Parts: sequence; C-alpha cells; structure tokens
Amino acid sequence: MRIAAATIVTLTLPLSALADPLPSWNDTEAKAAIIAFVDTVTDPESGDFVPARDRIATFDNDGTLWAEQPVYFQALYALDVLREKAADDPSILGTDVLKAAAEGDLDTVMASGIEGLLEVINVSHAGITVDAFQADAYEWLTTATHPTSGKTYAGMVYQPMLELLSYLRDEGFATYIVSGGGIDFIRSFADDAYGIPPWQVVGTEGTTTFAVEEGGAVLNKDGGVTFVDDKEGKPVGIIRHIGQRPIFAAGNSDGDFEMLEYTTGGDGPSFGLIVHHTDAEREFSYDRDSHIGELERGLDEGPERGWLIVDMAQDWAKVFPSD
Amino acid sequence: MRIAAATIVTLTLPLSALADPLPSWNDTEAKAAIIAFVDTVTDPESGDFVPARDRIATFDNDGTLWAEQPVYFQALYALDVLREKAADDPSILGTDVLKAAAEGDLDTVMASGIEGLLEVINVSHAGITVDAFQADAYEWLTTATHPTSGKTYAGMVYQPMLELLSYLRDEGFATYIVSGGGIDFIRSFADDAYGIPPWQVVGTEGTTTFAVEEGGAVLNKDGGVTFVDDKEGKPVGIIRHIGQRPIFAAGNSDGDFEMLEYTTGGDGPSFGLIVHHTDAEREFSYDRDSHIGELERGLDEGPERGWLIVDMAQDWAKVFPSD
Repeated sequence: MRIAAATIVTLTLPLSALADPLPSWNDTEAKAAIIAFVDTVTDPESGDFVPARDRIATFDNDGTLWAEQPVYFQALYALDVLREKAADDPSILGTDVLKAAAEGDLDTVMASGIEGLLEVINVSHAGITVDAFQADAYEWLTTATHPTSGKTYAGMVYQPMLELLSYLRDEGFATYIVSGGGIDFIRSFADDAYGIPPWQVVGTEGTTTFAVEEGGAVLNKDGGVTFVDDKEGKPVGIIRHIGQRPIFAAGNSDGDFEMLEYTTGGDGPSFGLIVHHTDAEREFSYDRDSHIGELERGLDEGPERGWLIVDMAQDWAKVFPSD
Repeated sequence: MRIAAATIVTLTLPLSALADPLPSWNDTEAKAAIIAFVDTVTDPESGDFVPARDRIATFDNDGTLWAEQPVYFQALYALDVLREKAADDPSILGTDVLKAAAEGDLDTVMASGIEGLLEVINVSHAGITVDAFQADAYEWLTTATHPTSGKTYAGMVYQPMLELLSYLRDEGFATYIVSGGGIDFIRSFADDAYGIPPWQVVGTEGTTTFAVEEGGAVLNKDGGVTFVDDKEGKPVGIIRHIGQRPIFAAGNSDGDFEMLEYTTGGDGPSFGLIVHHTDAEREFSYDRDSHIGELERGLDEGPERGWLIVDMAQDWAKVFPSD
C-alpha cells in the first residue's frame, strides 16, 4: 500500500519536484524564491498563472551570465583584433587611444571612457562581414585565455545561471539576452554557451549594410554605433525585438535597472533578480565603486522593489562549469 | 491484402501527402514548386535537408500577406487618427500636407511622397504609449472598412498566404514578417491574423523612449523614424532581428528585391517567391507603373534567378478568407 501511494504522488508531482533544477545553487532563500515564482506562474490553478506564450525572461550578459572583470571581454577581444590589424597597417592608429589600445594599455583606454572604447570598437569591428566577424570572435572566445583565471572566455560562464536558463526553458519560458554588449559578438557564442539562438539576443548595434559582392549577398559591419542597449535603452531594445514586457529579468549592474523596472512594472506577476558580486575568492567582488558593472541604485532600491539580490558567495555552490 | 497494403502506405506517408496543405492554391506549377521545396528541405534523406533550427521564412506584409491598395492601410489609419486629433486641436496641422491629410485628401498626401507620408505618421503615431497605440490600431483594423471591398482591413489578408504560413510552420519553419510598415502597427494584429507573435515581426521603427509615469513603467512613441525596413534595409532588419540568413522569402514588390537576393544568395537550398497582382476582378491588378508596390526588377530578373512568380489570377483559387 505504501509503495502504491508513493507511486501516485510521484506521478502527480511536477518534474521540478522530482529532481533539483538548480543543483549549483545552495539551499538558501534565493533558490527558494526563484522556484516559488516559477511554480506559481506555471500552475494553471494559481491566480498568478501566466500562459507559456507570455513567459518571457530577459538576461543581461556581462556580469550576469559570465564574468566581466577586469573589463568586458568584448573590449579585450577588440584590443587583440586592433593589435593584429595595426601590425598589418600601423596607419589605422590615428589617435592616442588607438595607439594605447594596440599596445594593450587597458588603463589608458578605460580612462578615455565610453568614447575611447567606441573608437577602438569602430576600428576593430569594422570592414568585415557579420559572418566572418562572428567566426573570428567565436575562435577567440574558445581559444584565448583570461588574464587571471587562465580559463577560456567561453569557459567563464556561470554554472548557476546556465541551470537557471535551462530550468526556465523547461518550464516554458523563452530566454533572451538583453545586453549592452555588441549583438553580433554575443550571437557568435550564445547558442553554444547558453542555448540561446541569434533571434533571442538583443544588444548594442552598429551600422550594418547590405552588399552584393563577388562572394555573394552579404551584410557588412561598417563601424559606428546606431543603438546602445544599456540603461533606458534596454526596455527600448526589448520592445523593438521582443515586442512585449517580460515577466522575469536578471541583471547585475545599474545598467540593468531600467530593464528590471520595466519588467516588474506591469500588472501581472514578475520577478527581478540582481547578481551581486560578493565572491573575491571564486570570482570577483565589486559593486558601488566598480569601473565595470557599477551597482549602487540596484542595491539601494532593489530590496524595497521586491527584487531578489543574489549573493554569489552565499547562494552559489559553484561558479564556473569547470570548478 | 489490398487493404493492408493501403494501410502501410498511409502510415509511412508524411502528413502533407495525406491532406492538401494549400487548399486555396490551384494545382498549378506554383503550388507544386512550393511543396517540392518544402518536401526536399524537410527530408532527412535529402542532400538538401535543412535542420528545423535553420528553417527561417520571411514574408513581406503589404501586398504579400494582405492587400495594399488604394494605399498602404497604415496610411489610411494615420489619416483617420490625424483627423480625430485635429478635431481636438487644429493647431497640429502645421503644414499643407497635414491639412490635406486631415481632410482625407489622399492624392495630395501621396503626391508629397514618402516625406509627406512620414509627416503624417510623425504626428499621428506619436505622443502615445506603444500599448495604447496597438490597442487603437487593432480596434481600427477590426472595425473600419476598406473603401472598395467593404471588408474590415483585418479581413483583407490573403487566404492562400495564411495557408502557406501554417504549412511552413507545420513543417518546422519559423515564419517572420519583414515589412516596410511600422513594427508596432503590424504587431497589433499579426498574432491574431497570421499566428505570428510580436517577436517574429520586423518592420520600420520610430523613436521609442522609456519613461516611468504615474501609470507605471512604459514605452512611448515619440514620432520620427529611426530605421526603414525596406529595400536594402530588409536584409539589415533580418540580421538585426533574426541574426541569420533565411532560406525562404516572399514579397510582391521591388522593395522586397534585396530580401529575396539575400535569402537566395547563400550556399544552401533556398526559395524566393513573388506575389504578382494580376487579378483585377478579385483583388487588384498592378505591377510596373504602380504608385504602391511597384514591381519591375522582380519581374525582369526574378525568373532567371529561379524565383517563383505567383500569378494571383491563375494560381489562387481564393483570395480573401470571406470569399
């Protein structure tokens, strides 16, 4: 009789109750809050049920799905590309920032602010087809290694977030990246790394033009930035690409504030999540005063807005897949 | 024995062979060509097999999925909105084109070209949230009626194209709209009319800004056009939104030429389709000299490029769902 009863219970429990969907998350309040939200919105008997069609989740990339220190990995890629290009043609280094970048002088590039970084990206990410650029970026991401961890950049994705993406998809969510990083750069590895196809990646966009060349009909990257998918640009990127308000959003910096504000500002149930980098031992520790991923307003206002602040050191049993 | 053999054949035939997937298409070469292509790319034994992940199909909207005469329906909507707005506040009619538009003088608006049309759209499609705009557009599309057909605009979608969209989706394709029309306007009815959700609609984009107002966090339409999804803009819209080359594209005018050129310009199997408006009796007849949906280069070069020219009068058994 006891066996039969157990069988009945097993058959009627949802899959998420049978196996831990988030094994790299410690059994803290953070994990419980995520699972409680997903259980509620996927339960047809719940007053907060959300049909699968409307289960849209958006994730920042840098610092949320993978690491972003000592500087955005795309910037490190841009420096490497610039160095290679300058070896062939030193005349492309027309400004002090570009010269510093080609010498790998990251401090000077960072001190020049977003304008300096854009100068580097304009030269390094231009004069190439989108396809060739993505092949090159993918090669770099899977072979070049991070200065302090020694891992490949593609290896510096967060295992707990990979599990969260899979868990949400298993529960009928569509998972999108909404990043300040370049859309073509992220798409080069997002499918491999996160199981997120190109059409579910939203990012910063540059000038792209159509051309019919000897090799066929192609799209060229021409440099310049036409849309910045950061801060108040994130809700705009969401409405342009996805076309409706998400019900789940995850970020790690104040650049994600408006995305969380928009996501949790609708009428129905919603969830805002902020990854707080508290783990200097296994990853990096930074927030209010960081030059990358500054997190101040999110820490101050997030809790009163009901957003979950994930404490990496406390809430994550594991950080990188290879740990 | 004969019954048993018939059963075996039935069980091994694909669904498409059992029921006609395109009942509103006559049994002409056009229908056969579409089905042959779909059969080939979905057959794992075929050398031209395409995995479901890469079965991306893009469709123009005006003149391809629904009618576009005497002028784009969005322009008629803009005129109606402008007239209403001017009744409340005549001072918004600051130019001759706007005055003509508010009087319903379509000829003057059309004679002013794309700039005139943009003036009208800038005033009529601004100062409103995306959500409120879409609710208003949807209401208009499902209640206002077309000047000559008497049908609602939402009722002027093409039955054969609805079947083609469903057929492709049943065969594992993702179906996208890639239109010169406004992205917010199309999204207001695309899911209802075509089964195409907002995230599979690519279109012309206007300035959109994020704001936190009394009613919550919203996105506002501010007028102005930031991206024109027409001609060489269509492949750009495709790479920005979808992120990879389609294998099937359908259009009806030279504004779709580059989309078909890009789609059929890759290495693998692909299909280009042009709807030729040849049916003055059931719909409209126009091509080379039309002020809307001009089709010249597509007729001249399409056949040699292997594109299918669909002759509405000959290839379609039915035009509108209510016929």
